[in-house]
Amino acid sequence: MQHYQQYIEANKERFLQELFDFLRIPSVSTDPKFKADVRRAAEFLRDKLLEAGADKAQLFETAGHPIVYAEKIVDPQAPTVLVYGHYDVQPADPYELWQTPPFEPVVKKTDIHPNGAIFARGACDDKGQVYLQLKAFETMVKTHDLPCNVKFMIEGEEECGSGNLEPFLHEYKNMLKADVILISDTSIISNDTPSIECGLRGLSYLEVTVTGPKRDLHSGVYGGAVANPINVLCEMIASLKDAKGRITIPGFYDKVQELSPEERALMAQIPFDEEAYKKDLGVEALFGEEGYTTIERASIRPTLDVNGIWGGYTGEGAKTVLPSKAHAKISMRLVPDQDPDEITQLFTKHFLSIAPPYVKVEVHPHHGGKPVVTPIDSPGFQAASRAFEQAWGKKPIPTRGGGSIPIVALFEEVLGLKSVLMGFGLDSDAIHSPNEHFGLFNFYKGIETVPLFYQHFKELAK
Amino acid sequence: MQHYQQYIEANKERFLQELFDFLRIPSVSTDPKFKADVRRAAEFLRDKLLEAGADKAQLFETAGHPIVYAEKIVDPQAPTVLVYGHYDVQPADPYELWQTPPFEPVVKKTDIHPNGAIFARGACDDKGQVYLQLKAFETMVKTHDLPCNVKFMIEGEEECGSGNLEPFLHEYKNMLKADVILISDTSIISNDTPSIECGLRGLSYLEVTVTGPKRDLHSGVYGGAVANPINVLCEMIASLKDAKGRITIPGFYDKVQELSPEERALMAQIPFDEEAYKKDLGVEALFGEEGYTTIERASIRPTLDVNGIWGGYTGEGAKTVLPSKAHAKISMRLVPDQDPDEITQLFTKHFLSIAPPYVKVEVHPHHGGKPVVTPIDSPGFQAASRAFEQAWGKKPIPTRGGGSIPIVALFEEVLGLKSVLMGFGLDSDAIHSPNEHFGLFNFYKGIETVPLFYQHFKELAK
Repeated sequence: MQHYQQYIEANKERFLQELFDFLRIPSVSTDPKFKADVRRAAEFLRDKLLEAGADKAQLFETAGHPIVYAEKIVDPQAPTVLVYGHYDVQPADPYELWQTPPFEPVVKKTDIHPNGAIFARGACDDKGQVYLQLKAFETMVKTHDLPCNVKFMIEGEEECGSGNLEPFLHEYKNMLKADVILISDTSIISNDTPSIECGLRGLSYLEVTVTGPKRDLHSGVYGGAVANPINVLCEMIASLKDAKGRITIPGFYDKVQELSPEERALMAQIPFDEEAYKKDLGVEALFGEEGYTTIERASIRPTLDVNGIWGGYTGEGAKTVLPSKAHAKISMRLVPDQDPDEITQLFTKHFLSIAPPYVKVEVHPHHGGKPVVTPIDSPGFQAASRAFEQAWGKKPIPTRGGGSIPIVALFEEVLGLKSVLMGFGLDSDAIHSPNEHFGLFNFYKGIETVPLFYQHFKELAK
Repeated sequence: MQHYQQYIEANKERFLQELFDFLRIPSVSTDPKFKADVRRAAEFLRDKLLEAGADKAQLFETAGHPIVYAEKIVDPQAPTVLVYGHYDVQPADPYELWQTPPFEPVVKKTDIHPNGAIFARGACDDKGQVYLQLKAFETMVKTHDLPCNVKFMIEGEEECGSGNLEPFLHEYKNMLKADVILISDTSIISNDTPSIECGLRGLSYLEVTVTGPKRDLHSGVYGGAVANPINVLCEMIASLKDAKGRITIPGFYDKVQELSPEERALMAQIPFDEEAYKKDLGVEALFGEEGYTTIERASIRPTLDVNGIWGGYTGEGAKTVLPSKAHAKISMRLVPDQDPDEITQLFTKHFLSIAPPYVKVEVHPHHGGKPVVTPIDSPGFQAASRAFEQAWGKKPIPTRGGGSIPIVALFEEVLGLKSVLMGFGLDSDAIHSPNEHFGLFNFYKGIETVPLFYQHFKELAK
């Protein structure tokens, strides 16, 4: 372990500057105007993989953004680790809420990160974590201690549904042969309490439009005489949950696996400070499904959230319009064994059925993802657990995450491989929000921990 | 009457070209970036009033947009007509729904306007109608038959609340002395069925903001654990009306004057083709307060409409955000004797009281206006009625309008004057909407009808 640490110490400043260069590229995949920047980020990664010691690294073209693939084969008899991540980032809107510009990384100290954190869009999700994997790889190569074969598969569309990943997996199944998939795109409980995500929620995402009159109307001349599509949309959305926080879509909960009392007792042991949580979020009170704790509501229970809503006049001043249309983006987080396509159909059927006769309703599905669970007795999970214990001095707690990484289920289906979620971020790192950041401690500790995974996996995967 | 008609016929083309020039100026009062254009429109009007024969015409500065004042005194013994209108217009958003640009007037034939209509923002509300008043004045001056003294008071803030009109009325009360106020800013039932508005609804307008967490959150990490302010706003808005279309704010209906059975029977005689109405609006079914006809719902009953709603991510693609804030613009149309300030307070009190403890709610009032009714036995109403009968060959039907012209109540309070609403537009002219227009028939017929009002008022006001 010492040779790894010495190499990291000698090169840590360069590691950080390279990460800054990576973060400066605004690789926003969901918005077409950033297309060229997304490609630039892929090319940056390919070049750095070659510098780090990959035998080969190249861009694979898709119908959308390119996929970066690299490999180093040290011994055909050794196990192979396939590292997955994404080099694309979420949009940074609303820009005016960022204290420093989202694509100009700076290090600032915070209460949670007293040694400093890197502030930039993508610092934690996922560029900072992809880059620590890359630097861990470089560390093992340059110290001549790379225990396993390594393959990197870093895509550019995770934030908008990974639409072109599945065909790539099918087409290059042979090239991608491996023994485990390693992913750094999740979080630990705290910098004192390492943890490994062994479950992820799934996702169903739809966009709905309610149309009333075929054109905008004057709300004085027509108000009261015709249904207002914004009012109707509000009523339809309001009806999707009851007062106990339960989703009212028929059949929604049919396939939800309840946790056993033992599993719930284990979850109850996860450290959670409700007052600090509320203070961090700036809310007086929490709200969720009756009968479940906050941690359970955010991990092992399904949810429904409106992610965006718009209609009518939203500019400065007053306009007395009775608008033609109202829109919303709605998503549901799913748990085993809910199926995203089935849930999407149940939502669509129900939402169309509750539409009153004085409006027209359209429902358009976006990307989804299956929920997943990784068994804790697998060699990959065990290797990660020992790596954390060795580097952090503490056994990591197995947790169930609230977020979705839809392709984890896809990897199992197409490549027949389990994924190990060795993430190093924190929930307070504000991913998907303004002022996203990633601790310097977390970045460097990750680079230190990952090579230990390779060492243990070499042993356990025999 | 013939001398008027001959003058109009000889000058009709010039009248139209001048109106086009007026319509080309984008005098959008509610949006600060059009400030200079608003002033240009005022200056245009002032110049045209002088050319038409006003003794004096000038801009009066206010804390906002200027007010245009002009007068011609023919005989101190004669009655004085004070013409009110507004030269500002509604915003033209969404621009992409206009078939021709909103500030480039063109004449196009339609089913309802087979002789052509002028398509532009403000064509009907209110520039086309202000201009027909101006050309009627010119016609009377140039044919040496102006029966009454005339004063013009044309403001530039009607579309954003006329905030600076009241101080102007107080300060220049003497200058504004008159016997009746004449306003062309409303509509007739159809080009075959003239009508005069003898009642207008009032207005209460507010903006609300619901705040959940103090920053945007990742909807996977936090979804289910905290209340989503968009979902909460939808629930609060949905609760404002019941299934019978009745507003649930406590005290809302307390001061509403119900019409007598006789008055309702009279209203039931107004020609109304429900199938044509639904077809024009493109809806399968109408919806409103149970127990009232469509015409009643749109004129003598109060309403509540959401004019705009926004929150979360509304751009292209998907973003899984649990947003910090959700906003809505909400307005209520009022009927006698509801008071806008009282209704605003009732709304605010109720809306704050239904806010659940896991969000913060703010309510900001915008401008309002009192509902009004003009008695049909007044000299002004009678003069207008006879003018319509003479020019159109048919007695006009007295109607109650759905829209609000808040300053009508103000004129009565401050100047002690009743207003006569001689409007020449049609409900289908799409005011406040894309593709607003005004019939050439209506423009010229208005210029012909208004001088007859002056003649009859001279007789009746003795």
